[in-house]
Amino acid sequence: MKQLNICIAGLGNVGSALIQSIEDNNKFHFEDRSIKINILGISAKDKNKKRKFNINNYKWFDDPKAMILIDDCHVIIELIGQEKGISYELIEMALNKNKHVVTGNKALIANHGKKLFDLANKNSVALSYEAAVAGGIPIIKTLKNTLNLDKINKISGILNGTTNYILTKMQEDNMSFDEVLKIAKDKGFTSDQESKLDIGGYDAAHKLTILSTLCFKSNLNFKNNYIEGISNIKVEDINYAEKLGYKIKLISEACIIEDKISNFTSPKLIKKSNPLASVDNALNAINIETFHLENLFLEGEGAGGKPTANSVLSDLYDISQNEKFDNLGFKIDKLQDYEKYSTENIINSYYLRIMTDDKPGVLSSITNFFSEFNISVKKILQLPENSDVDKPIPIIITTHSIQKEKLSNVIKKIESLEFVKEKVTVLAIHDN
Amino acid sequence: MKQLNICIAGLGNVGSALIQSIEDNNKFHFEDRSIKINILGISAKDKNKKRKFNINNYKWFDDPKAMILIDDCHVIIELIGQEKGISYELIEMALNKNKHVVTGNKALIANHGKKLFDLANKNSVALSYEAAVAGGIPIIKTLKNTLNLDKINKISGILNGTTNYILTKMQEDNMSFDEVLKIAKDKGFTSDQESKLDIGGYDAAHKLTILSTLCFKSNLNFKNNYIEGISNIKVEDINYAEKLGYKIKLISEACIIEDKISNFTSPKLIKKSNPLASVDNALNAINIETFHLENLFLEGEGAGGKPTANSVLSDLYDISQNEKFDNLGFKIDKLQDYEKYSTENIINSYYLRIMTDDKPGVLSSITNFFSEFNISVKKILQLPENSDVDKPIPIIITTHSIQKEKLSNVIKKIESLEFVKEKVTVLAIHDN
Repeated sequence: MKQLNICIAGLGNVGSALIQSIEDNNKFHFEDRSIKINILGISAKDKNKKRKFNINNYKWFDDPKAMILIDDCHVIIELIGQEKGISYELIEMALNKNKHVVTGNKALIANHGKKLFDLANKNSVALSYEAAVAGGIPIIKTLKNTLNLDKINKISGILNGTTNYILTKMQEDNMSFDEVLKIAKDKGFTSDQESKLDIGGYDAAHKLTILSTLCFKSNLNFKNNYIEGISNIKVEDINYAEKLGYKIKLISEACIIEDKISNFTSPKLIKKSNPLASVDNALNAINIETFHLENLFLEGEGAGGKPTANSVLSDLYDISQNEKFDNLGFKIDKLQDYEKYSTENIINSYYLRIMTDDKPGVLSSITNFFSEFNISVKKILQLPENSDVDKPIPIIITTHSIQKEKLSNVIKKIESLEFVKEKVTVLAIHDN
Repeated sequence: MKQLNICIAGLGNVGSALIQSIEDNNKFHFEDRSIKINILGISAKDKNKKRKFNINNYKWFDDPKAMILIDDCHVIIELIGQEKGISYELIEMALNKNKHVVTGNKALIANHGKKLFDLANKNSVALSYEAAVAGGIPIIKTLKNTLNLDKINKISGILNGTTNYILTKMQEDNMSFDEVLKIAKDKGFTSDQESKLDIGGYDAAHKLTILSTLCFKSNLNFKNNYIEGISNIKVEDINYAEKLGYKIKLISEACIIEDKISNFTSPKLIKKSNPLASVDNALNAINIETFHLENLFLEGEGAGGKPTANSVLSDLYDISQNEKFDNLGFKIDKLQDYEKYSTENIINSYYLRIMTDDKPGVLSSITNFFSEFNISVKKILQLPENSDVDKPIPIIITTHSIQKEKLSNVIKKIESLEFVKEKVTVLAIHDN
């Protein structure tokens, strides 16, 4: 029987669900797995907040760092979630004191992970973070322990539940982005503060940074991300995409192109036959393409107390079973600094919405323009939306593959046309 | 650098792909992972068969058992695939000689696994079998290493690629079972011998036996399976199901009901919104429901050389990293003999196709019958298929949840009606 003494800093949804599972551990085979988990200390900002468990059963610490000083504590669990500040101090101090650390803190790992992994490596302790990416989906362990002798070509996925919920709801209820965002906030899916990270694509990019490191040994570097959020997505675009056989999803994808790293998070049109298109509401999903596997697709809850607590538990189990800790699945000195692949070189097919005056000749002017610039058009959809001739009408165009830079040049020209009334909406189309 | 010396018995698709990957290992980070794999011996039935690698680079053994006697061989890889015979002898002898074993042999593990796991446990060696279930999907490691401190409520999935290919093709090309089976054989997806295991549902049930053991600690017992194959599925049923919003898939599912084990493999109607419905062609997929996770869904290639070889590689990596081997993820003495849950007690909703004379009053007679027996009808679809009044017409009925036994009684009565012309087709509807 392996005994694991833990302290928990941060008692929100995940911390509380974790404590409940540990209290209820007879349900969860702890004994069959020969592991016993003792909670030696708990800490959170507000001691008086109503919680789902009785805090009086545990030793309370106002200062989480004080828990590190408990001699027989083996693992500090960091669920506070600050990008730096107290979260960083706590983890750094714990690793320095040879304590294992389990965290769900993606922003911290994506931005400051390198230093912390170095420290963990130096002190031969675990720095585990299954809970940091895609909630209950065991993507970290799949990459670290299962695909370790394979060669990963590409990883792509839906890594943020809030934005996926918003896009799903916009489509299902034909509502605007702002209306659905309000509902998401009212339902507690996201706070004012979190929503900036969610909607802006930053939360997904934090997670992609971590995945990209595991897949390609690229040094943790958040600056390598190209990030575009969903706040400009209009329900009209969702509906036009639907007519063309696509859904719009916030897709994060990473691969190596010409020895450079390409980490992209942006809203994209996904063909309905692609399994990512069926990932709705707050679910997350990840698709991995490797030398051996055409596709390995994992889907599950991307957030929430119980799923994320389960990822923390799986890290604790791992710690109980191992004596050496390759926290990245490879030696840390294999990390390499990749150059960032330039977005201008990206080759993709695109969806464009051009708002023009509703008058004869407009469509042919635009298509002439495309052929003049040698851009191959795949489909055109002209859908007058109203009978009010004074209002601009949308022309929807999908292109074949084209270099981003070339497309940008054409769009500038189109926007300068007298009968084009708004900035052109441009969305990439996911190629599979 | 950990050096792993292996011998490979069986050089079909998987064995050959494995050797090619190891030869090409610079692509696959072996060095970054600090592992070196040496092939000390190879063996297969036919030395002269044309293969994708040069057999002269390796020491050939006519008798695979002779490879066990190589002193510094650490791992025997069994890819021969006999349910007992030489495969069993080889594995038993290897474990007895304290060699680790990696196998892709589901039939053998499902039928004779208990003895072999006991032996492996006694001798503290690995008996690894990621390749035995769902090809390239890392389901064994997910259950063993990631969900180990969770409580699994249900596991269900599509575990046989050949039958899934056949059902997909029948639907897409509106072809009969026999026509598509011939194509599958011509394409080499399945042989005459394999196809019996595939189509009959036995191959899927072998895999389910293994998953069920990992999920519920049920002793490996193939006899606990209820198995129904797909050879009676008619393209008409696929088309009617489509009209009702379902696809027909061969589903394997396991759970514990009233302390008894329920292991089911049978063709079922799956709602199109369920991710299992989108798993087409030779893909496999598995859905896991746990205390912590509403759904964890994994999809990937269920067979083929490269994907399955990758699972063998991941087992080899595991062996190189560990010193203790809990081959089931829990102590073997925790295995328990469950009683088999009686199929008659199963509660499900059903699809029925009743072929009747095309004359007035037939439909109302049948529906009266259902209300007399207190069976709640969900939908009725009456679709005269031909203008030939002499031919029977189908009446399609879907029911609400009902006990299998009760349904069976009603069906017997229906089949005895004078205007009912054939045995009633009965298919369960997957409830999620």
